[in-house]
Amino acid sequence: MNPERTRALALIEQTAREVADAIARGDLPELRFPLRSLANVRYEPGGGFALGPATKTRSLSAGGARSFAQALRMMTLSHQMLRDDDFASKREAYYVSKNWGDCRFESQPESDEIIDDLEALVSREGLVREHLGFFPEEHAGSVVGMLTVVDTDPETGETVEVDCRALGRGAYSIPRSVEHLSFRTDAKFVLAIETGGMFQRLHSHRFWRSSECVLVEMGGVPTRAVRRFVRRLADEHALPVYCFVDCDPYGIANIYRTLKVGSGNAAHVSAAFSVPTARFLGVTPQDILDFGLQDATHPLVDVDVKRAHDALEHDPFFAAHPAWSAALQQMLAMGVRAEQQALAKWGLNFVLQEYLPRKLAAPEAFLP
Amino acid sequence: MNPERTRALALIEQTAREVADAIARGDLPELRFPLRSLANVRYEPGGGFALGPATKTRSLSAGGARSFAQALRMMTLSHQMLRDDDFASKREAYYVSKNWGDCRFESQPESDEIIDDLEALVSREGLVREHLGFFPEEHAGSVVGMLTVVDTDPETGETVEVDCRALGRGAYSIPRSVEHLSFRTDAKFVLAIETGGMFQRLHSHRFWRSSECVLVEMGGVPTRAVRRFVRRLADEHALPVYCFVDCDPYGIANIYRTLKVGSGNAAHVSAAFSVPTARFLGVTPQDILDFGLQDATHPLVDVDVKRAHDALEHDPFFAAHPAWSAALQQMLAMGVRAEQQALAKWGLNFVLQEYLPRKLAAPEAFLP
Repeated sequence: MNPERTRALALIEQTAREVADAIARGDLPELRFPLRSLANVRYEPGGGFALGPATKTRSLSAGGARSFAQALRMMTLSHQMLRDDDFASKREAYYVSKNWGDCRFESQPESDEIIDDLEALVSREGLVREHLGFFPEEHAGSVVGMLTVVDTDPETGETVEVDCRALGRGAYSIPRSVEHLSFRTDAKFVLAIETGGMFQRLHSHRFWRSSECVLVEMGGVPTRAVRRFVRRLADEHALPVYCFVDCDPYGIANIYRTLKVGSGNAAHVSAAFSVPTARFLGVTPQDILDFGLQDATHPLVDVDVKRAHDALEHDPFFAAHPAWSAALQQMLAMGVRAEQQALAKWGLNFVLQEYLPRKLAAPEAFLP
Repeated sequence: MNPERTRALALIEQTAREVADAIARGDLPELRFPLRSLANVRYEPGGGFALGPATKTRSLSAGGARSFAQALRMMTLSHQMLRDDDFASKREAYYVSKNWGDCRFESQPESDEIIDDLEALVSREGLVREHLGFFPEEHAGSVVGMLTVVDTDPETGETVEVDCRALGRGAYSIPRSVEHLSFRTDAKFVLAIETGGMFQRLHSHRFWRSSECVLVEMGGVPTRAVRRFVRRLADEHALPVYCFVDCDPYGIANIYRTLKVGSGNAAHVSAAFSVPTARFLGVTPQDILDFGLQDATHPLVDVDVKRAHDALEHDPFFAAHPAWSAALQQMLAMGVRAEQQALAKWGLNFVLQEYLPRKLAAPEAFLP
């Protein structure tokens, strides 16, 4: 068992012991969880979103008995999974409860709520949901390039090495939890790409070989596993991370911002699931001018404009970076957005032969 | 260049020559494409949807000049890609046109329409869009198990072998076109799985090793690349294909039906992008009773009921199979649906230890 799982197990046992002790003393037992709401969230420019000190309590009162029991049951499930080296998706955890009699959850938001509370609890110790055995359901993204992923066969315990340069036109599909992986790499940087089409283009042309990099297909807003995977590469191998997405408010304020600082409604895990060193390679509004893409743009629609204004007015990340405010204002003034595939206007491989080399020659100019 | 690409190239050249000859003769040149509409679609119980004999014509008339020129331009792009061993997503092809002056497309549906016409044209020769160099954008799904994928490095031409048993907890991410792949396998069957969570569970517990199979994560309705990948395994290695999805009208009438007979609005390629030998392992409405899942179900909502009635009344696949009509009627009578994760009610690994072994002991009982 890895050290984080051992610590998670100890935390569950300690919490359970406190409940047992309270009962033995004749006190009403209670479980105290960090409060997960925007009111209890801080933005730390160097790091990302972080949880404040406020807490909420589940106690064994008349009104709270069921939810108290459910929390203990969920801790028991986590404890079993950690001992058995097993895991469950949040959806599966919900279904497991169907055999809990009166404690069963009626809907998944109820069970998710308790899993999120448990995660907030262990986040105080630098742990995340995956360390408790709860995995996300979503597909996690793909990787190729100058990287060897070191894993173990969960059945035989043998070491398994996946050479991400030796997958043909295929790719390494990131598992739903990446905590147990380690890496060997002599890459110079990580390029995190929004669309599968662009990923396949750069991969098929062996851009990772000529540029000595790792390519990551995010496929839209990056999942927890993708962010954690990239974060670990950035931290443990000191790799710069460059983000290559569409020039639109979604690419910037959703995809890039989530990669860089995490998700606003999961601030208790942003520290682990964000890549604070990430920089924005493009496509920038200025690129539309610099690379002559004006006639390959699309007008901003209402939802784009709303998203840009939301970012400018309500998102502490953009408020903290004048360069970003200026870029979003420029996009609004131009009234257009451009997809990364728009570069194909100058030929299918313009992106490989011109755009990326020119941009990568001056990473210090990337947006923060 | 593989034989299919060579044939595609020859077809384009022949079509272009006919246009040139017509012009040389002083005739109005025209391009004739198969008509892609439901009126020109047949369902063949043994195979799937197939295109009928009707055609439509694009000619160099006053009203049709632009679309005629666009079709020729798109054929030229395909021709270039085939010679250069390159490819484009439909989105990229649209953007390439931005440099075509008056021939440029104003919106992607226009360019998709022409690509689909070209595909329908070459489908008469058993070819598909991928053979023309046009790849889908979408993420294609993941694979693990008793399979070695044989590919070539597109840059060096070296043979690359990916052992899908040696990827740790990760997986092989299927590329967007699989025509160039070949396979080595001693698997007994292919299990095509709807959800990523279930795929990760079976993979982490090495179900593919104990059951000697290949696991495919479809992640919802299978993409063209997934269907083609599975089809090639079924055809070239005589592997039975079993489908494991949620027991709901979407899992049955969308995911499974698309895997088995193809997509109704792309009948011209169903022959290549379907798996006619696929069988439905589960979850069936009867499984809800046989495996005691009643209290882990959800009531059918309006969209479920509508989808089931649509399938029963309008889909020739279900009309052709009384066992399917009966199963859908049973679901409607029960008024509930069940997800594959609902099996977790009996423990996280009930699916591995009980459900799948019991089902796999009698594949002849699978729904058609």
